[in-house]
Amino acid sequence: MSLIALKKVDLFKAVPTRTLDSWLKGFNPLQREYRKGNFILLQGKEYNDLCCILSGEASAEFQDYGGKVLKVETLKASEAIATAVLFSPERLLPVTVVAQTDVTTLWVPRKEILRLCGMSAEFLETLLSDMGARLSFLAQKIRFLQFNTIRKKIAEYLLGQMQIQKTRSLVLPHSREMMAELFGVSRPSLSRVFSELCQQGVLKAEGKHCTVLEPARLRALAEEE
Amino acid sequence: MSLIALKKVDLFKAVPTRTLDSWLKGFNPLQREYRKGNFILLQGKEYNDLCCILSGEASAEFQDYGGKVLKVETLKASEAIATAVLFSPERLLPVTVVAQTDVTTLWVPRKEILRLCGMSAEFLETLLSDMGARLSFLAQKIRFLQFNTIRKKIAEYLLGQMQIQKTRSLVLPHSREMMAELFGVSRPSLSRVFSELCQQGVLKAEGKHCTVLEPARLRALAEEE
Repeated sequence: MSLIALKKVDLFKAVPTRTLDSWLKGFNPLQREYRKGNFILLQGKEYNDLCCILSGEASAEFQDYGGKVLKVETLKASEAIATAVLFSPERLLPVTVVAQTDVTTLWVPRKEILRLCGMSAEFLETLLSDMGARLSFLAQKIRFLQFNTIRKKIAEYLLGQMQIQKTRSLVLPHSREMMAELFGVSRPSLSRVFSELCQQGVLKAEGKHCTVLEPARLRALAEEE
Repeated sequence: MSLIALKKVDLFKAVPTRTLDSWLKGFNPLQREYRKGNFILLQGKEYNDLCCILSGEASAEFQDYGGKVLKVETLKASEAIATAVLFSPERLLPVTVVAQTDVTTLWVPRKEILRLCGMSAEFLETLLSDMGARLSFLAQKIRFLQFNTIRKKIAEYLLGQMQIQKTRSLVLPHSREMMAELFGVSRPSLSRVFSELCQQGVLKAEGKHCTVLEPARLRALAEEE
């Protein structure tokens, strides 16, 4: 039962079934159900067991001391929550996690996660890569927060991708939703500015494909004060 | 020689000498020297070997396409650079690293780092904790970037610490320098606002110790529009 549940979580997918099987002889991961609207994790509490979402959808929210609630992220089935917090020195959750639908979760103690790292190189690499991807996303986000207009953020982003992919016909690595999160802007605003740039003949964009028609004008946008 | 050098890097300090010794039978970490002003790592390049600073000081800089250079971070002796990038899916460096003094570095291939994780639970925990601490710092920084004034940032920070430490006599977990980086403000501006709050009788601050004298006024500051 636990084995089938584990196989639903991305973090464990690359681990050979035999390894998971022998790992699970040492302990029994808890499974818990939450009704829509229930709290799954609380901001400021210590985080000692990795929480994985098996089914349903949750949201991570941040509440400031002025009382404002800020939705930070949507958490979907197959995701492990806050892997990095589990290993940070203080282990304090920066957010509250709330069930947006009925949710089933699986809980794996921190020390069992460390034990699996020793048992499976595949797991270790997946875990490090998950943390690495998250960290590089946050680092980029901080960078984009300094560019004040959405046009400037898009220009910087596309010029960066042109340099990495060495072409003007780009395959964008982020969905529009992720891009909006990366830039710290709303998705409709992002789409509007993308459309404007297309109408002005600077870009041609279709889904994940984007061709920069006029690199010089894009560069000028990045240099705008 | 490599063993003595490794022991200078924080990441390897918790690993038993015997383990490091047998690990070093498998490969030989490179040591390289840089003159003040030289580039150590370049923004946009693939990062495959962990660079550790043995002596001297370097800075991480970010250059945008408008040509502006932004200093991101100071890197000191005993630090390992960008552990998370090494394990991120793309492995592309977001910054350029420049020697600020003469610098000596030690280079360890990514796959040897993974091998050491399998050999030493101490190393694995240190590596995960290093990445976890970094990630939680960036997540907090993004949170603080939303509060527009420095007073509001300080108020949120101190109210958060009061909740965690469950007292008004706080031992602050960050130096003034780190706090300025966390808030995305300059250090002199931060110190000025701290002094103002002390003069107004809201706080008493001395080094890492800070007592909140008037929690209600601090809460009012956090709620200001």
